[in-house]
Amino acid sequence: MTKQVKTAISPTRNEDYPEWYQQVIKASDLAERSPVRGCMVIKPWGYALWENIVHAMDNLFKATGVKNAYFPLFIPLSFLEKEAEHVEGFAKECAVVTHHRLEKGKSGRLEPAGPLAEPLVVRPTSETIIGDSFSRWVSSYRDLPILINQWANVVRWEMRTRMFLRTSEFLWQEGHTVHATAEEARERTRMMLDVYTTCVEDYLAMPVIRGRKSPAERFPGAVDTLSIETMMQDRKALQSGTSHFLGQNFARASEIKFQSAAETEEYAWTTSWGSSTRMIGGIIMTHGDDDGIILPPKVASAHVVLLPIFRKSEDRGSVMDFTEKLARELKAKTYHHRKVVVEIDDREIGGARGWDWVKKGIPLRVEIGPRDIAQHSLFVGRRDQAPNEKKAIDRDQFVAEITDILDEIQENLFQRALAYRKQHTVAIEDKKTFYEYFTPPNGEKPEIHGGFAVSGWCGSDECESKIKEDLAVTIRCIPFESENVKGRCIYCGKDSDSQVIYAKAY
Amino acid sequence: MTKQVKTAISPTRNEDYPEWYQQVIKASDLAERSPVRGCMVIKPWGYALWENIVHAMDNLFKATGVKNAYFPLFIPLSFLEKEAEHVEGFAKECAVVTHHRLEKGKSGRLEPAGPLAEPLVVRPTSETIIGDSFSRWVSSYRDLPILINQWANVVRWEMRTRMFLRTSEFLWQEGHTVHATAEEARERTRMMLDVYTTCVEDYLAMPVIRGRKSPAERFPGAVDTLSIETMMQDRKALQSGTSHFLGQNFARASEIKFQSAAETEEYAWTTSWGSSTRMIGGIIMTHGDDDGIILPPKVASAHVVLLPIFRKSEDRGSVMDFTEKLARELKAKTYHHRKVVVEIDDREIGGARGWDWVKKGIPLRVEIGPRDIAQHSLFVGRRDQAPNEKKAIDRDQFVAEITDILDEIQENLFQRALAYRKQHTVAIEDKKTFYEYFTPPNGEKPEIHGGFAVSGWCGSDECESKIKEDLAVTIRCIPFESENVKGRCIYCGKDSDSQVIYAKAY
Repeated sequence: MTKQVKTAISPTRNEDYPEWYQQVIKASDLAERSPVRGCMVIKPWGYALWENIVHAMDNLFKATGVKNAYFPLFIPLSFLEKEAEHVEGFAKECAVVTHHRLEKGKSGRLEPAGPLAEPLVVRPTSETIIGDSFSRWVSSYRDLPILINQWANVVRWEMRTRMFLRTSEFLWQEGHTVHATAEEARERTRMMLDVYTTCVEDYLAMPVIRGRKSPAERFPGAVDTLSIETMMQDRKALQSGTSHFLGQNFARASEIKFQSAAETEEYAWTTSWGSSTRMIGGIIMTHGDDDGIILPPKVASAHVVLLPIFRKSEDRGSVMDFTEKLARELKAKTYHHRKVVVEIDDREIGGARGWDWVKKGIPLRVEIGPRDIAQHSLFVGRRDQAPNEKKAIDRDQFVAEITDILDEIQENLFQRALAYRKQHTVAIEDKKTFYEYFTPPNGEKPEIHGGFAVSGWCGSDECESKIKEDLAVTIRCIPFESENVKGRCIYCGKDSDSQVIYAKAY
Repeated sequence: MTKQVKTAISPTRNEDYPEWYQQVIKASDLAERSPVRGCMVIKPWGYALWENIVHAMDNLFKATGVKNAYFPLFIPLSFLEKEAEHVEGFAKECAVVTHHRLEKGKSGRLEPAGPLAEPLVVRPTSETIIGDSFSRWVSSYRDLPILINQWANVVRWEMRTRMFLRTSEFLWQEGHTVHATAEEARERTRMMLDVYTTCVEDYLAMPVIRGRKSPAERFPGAVDTLSIETMMQDRKALQSGTSHFLGQNFARASEIKFQSAAETEEYAWTTSWGSSTRMIGGIIMTHGDDDGIILPPKVASAHVVLLPIFRKSEDRGSVMDFTEKLARELKAKTYHHRKVVVEIDDREIGGARGWDWVKKGIPLRVEIGPRDIAQHSLFVGRRDQAPNEKKAIDRDQFVAEITDILDEIQENLFQRALAYRKQHTVAIEDKKTFYEYFTPPNGEKPEIHGGFAVSGWCGSDECESKIKEDLAVTIRCIPFESENVKGRCIYCGKDSDSQVIYAKAY
C-alpha cells in the first residue's frame, strides 16, 4: 500500500496510535527517556511549554488567594500510615529511602550504608506531611482558611510508564487548603476545579467535562473527588486535573484542630487538588496531527519562527537584516501577558528546516526570501493548517495582526477538539449497543474506536467493576449537569439517578 | 542587666548570634523546621522571597542564552561512580532509595519491599545524570555550545543542619554547559559568576568578593571553582554562588564527545554553576538587625503594608475606603519588572501589628488613621530605619515617590553591608597578628569576632590545612584582583604569588 500523502510522523495516528505518540515526542524534541526506570528528561522545548502552563496556572491560583510554599520531599513512613485508605492507595508505588550514605563494601564497590531508623518515602503526594505543618499553623478559627499550593516533583513507582502520561517522577502542583466548615471546603473544591477548567480550556484549548468521580475512582482518603476529563484522539479519556474534598479524614489523621468562634474544639475540613506534566501528554493527543504536535499559542514554547532564505550568498546580509528587524518588532508585542517569543532559524539545510518546526508544533512559520522582501511581504504557514497551505501576507499587516492570528489558531484548536469530542460522544441506553461500542471491530485491535458513552449507572460498585472487567471501560465522571438525570443502569437495568460518562482512559 | 532599648528579637546579635538567627526566622515566619531530619518547610513569606530571587536570576540566565530543562531526581549509583573525585565528595551524604514499594511485614507493619537491582541516589547535584543526556545530545561541533539550567530540589544528608544555610533538602538551580574549547568553557564559567554577582549585589544588596577557590575547596571533580563570597554580621564568610570549570573530567566520565570542524573526535569541555535557598540565609545575616530580617526591596515578598487605624468603630468605613483606594494606586505601579506588592493588615491587635511587620522585614509600613486622612497624609516607617523613626508624608507624594523610596532602601542596605565588610577586612602580614585576629578575646567564645584577613599564601595544601586545624579559618577565595600580588605566606613565611581572603565560614 502506498501512502497518498507523506506525513512527518510515521506511523500515523490511524496506523499505530501509541507509537505515533512516542514518535511525536521524539520529533518535537519535547522530552526523552532517561536511563532511570520510568523517569524522563524534559528537554528545553518541552520545559518552556511547562513553564508557560505553570505561569498561567500560578496566576489563576494566586487570584483566588492561594499562596505558594514548599514542604519536604521525604515523608516518614509513620506519617503516611496515619490515614489508612491513603497509605493503602500509595503503598504499591513508593520509592523508599533506607540509607543516608554510601560506603565501600566487601566487594570494594560502593553500597548503601547508614541505615535510617525509620524509612522515608519520597512523596507520592503531600497530604500527610503538609497536614503536619497545618496542625501547627491552625489553632483558632481566625487562622482559617489556609490556602497553600506547592510546585514540586513527586514519585509514584509505575510498572508501565509512558512519557508525560505516566512516569515514575513527574512535576506537578498540589494545592492544600484548610477550612472551618464543610461547606466552605466544598466550595473551594469546586472553585479549584473551575480554575483547572479555565486553564485547560482557555490556555491548553482542550474542552473539558466537569464532574464527580464514582467512589471507586476517588483519591485514596477523599470524601469526594471532582475531575475534569478530556477526550484524546484515540477517544480515550484523560483526567487533566482533580480536586478533592477530604472531609475531616486528614484533619483527624494529622490532628488539625481549631477553636471555633463558640470556643469549642473542632477538626478542620480540608481539600487538595492537583495537576501535572501529564497535561502536556493531553496537548499532544488532543491537538497533534500526523505531522506532529500542535502547540496552543497561549502556552507555546515560542510563537513564531522566522526562516530566512538565501538563494545566493550575497543575499545573506540583506535577508538577515530584514529578518532581525522583523524579529525585534514582533518581540516587542504582548500576547496574553507575555511577550511574543520569536525564534530565528538560519540553518541552510533546505526543506528539512521548515519540517523541523512543523514537528515542533510552533504556531507560525514565516519564510523570508529576497523576493518576499522586494514585495515587502512574508510567506506564512499556520500550524493549524496543512504544511503546504502557506500564503503571502504584507509584512506590516503581519506585525499588526500577529496576536489576532494567534488567537484565531487558539480558538480553532479548541473548536476542533470540541467537535471531535461531540462527534464521539453518544448516549447509549441498551447494554448490547454499549458493549459493541466499546469492542474493537472485526476481532482486530485497532487503537482508535469507541468514545464517550453517556449512560445510566445504578450507583453500585458491582456494575461498575463488571464493566471494567469486561471492557476495560470505567466511569470517568458523573457530569454535574447530569447528576440528577434519571434513567436505567446500562449494566443491570435498574433505575439510575444519574447519567455518567463511560470511557476507556489513560 | 537591664536592656537599654527593647528589641523585637531576643537574644540580640551580640548576645547570641546563632540563636538570634533562628529567632529571626521564627519571628519573620519565613520557614520552620520539619519533622523530617534536616528538612525545612518554607512558609509563604519565605517562598515568595525565593520566587522573586528565582525570577530575577532566571531572567539573567536566559539573557545569556541559557534554557531551562528538567532531569531525573534519581541517579543510578553506577552513574555517580563514573567520576572518582565526584563520588568521593558526595558518598558521605547521599540519601539512597533501595526499595520501590511498601508491604505488610511479619510484625503487621508496613516495611520496604521490592528491592531495586541497583540503588538510586537522590541527586546531590546532577553532573552525571545530565552528562548522560549530553552524551546523546552532542555529536558535532555544530551542536555546541549547550547551555542548560535546572531549577530543582537536591538532597545532601547533613549531620548538623541550620535553616536555609545547610539543610538536607534544599532548592537550587544548577547550570550545566558543554563547549567545544577549554577557552569558551572558561569564559562561560566566569560569565555565570558575573551573573551571580549581578543577582546578589543588585537584587539581594549583598556586596561580594569574586575569586578562585584553592584546590582543597574545589567542587569534587572540578578543575577550577570560582565563587562569590559575602560577609555576614558575625564576620564569617558565606559562599553565595559557585561556578565550576570542569575541564574534560565529566565529559570523559559521561562520554560527551563531538566531531570537530577538522573531523577529529574530541571530548567536550563542560561547566556547572549553582546557587540555592542558602542565599536567603545570607539576606538574613547580611541585613537583619535586632528587630528581625530586612528584606531588600527588589526581592521582597511584599513592598509595603498598609495599617489602617480605627480610633472609633464609626471610622472603619472611611479609613478602609481610603486604604483600599491607596492600595489600588500603589499596586498599579511597577518596581523593577514587577508590580508593587501591597499588604493590608486590618487586624485590631494594637501595637503588636506594626511589630509583626517589622519582624517580617517589609520595606515600608504605612499607618493610616482618621487624622492622617484629614491631612491627606500617611505615617510611614522604613525598615532600614529605627522602628520609631516614622514620619508623615503627603499621600500623593508617597504614591508618586514609592519606587524611589524603595530604591533608596535598596541602595542603603547595600552601602551598609559594604561598609561593614570594609570595616572588618584587614590586611595582615604577620602570623602572630593573624592568629590573634581569629582568636576570640579573653578565652571566652563570643560569636562575633575577626573578619576577613587579606594575607599571603604560598600555595601549599599544608599551610592551608594547618591554619584550618588551628583556627577553623579557611581560604575563602583568591580574589581576581589580588591573584598576582606578591607577598609572603602568612603561615610558613615563604614567598607567595597571591593575596587571599582568610575567614571563618558557613
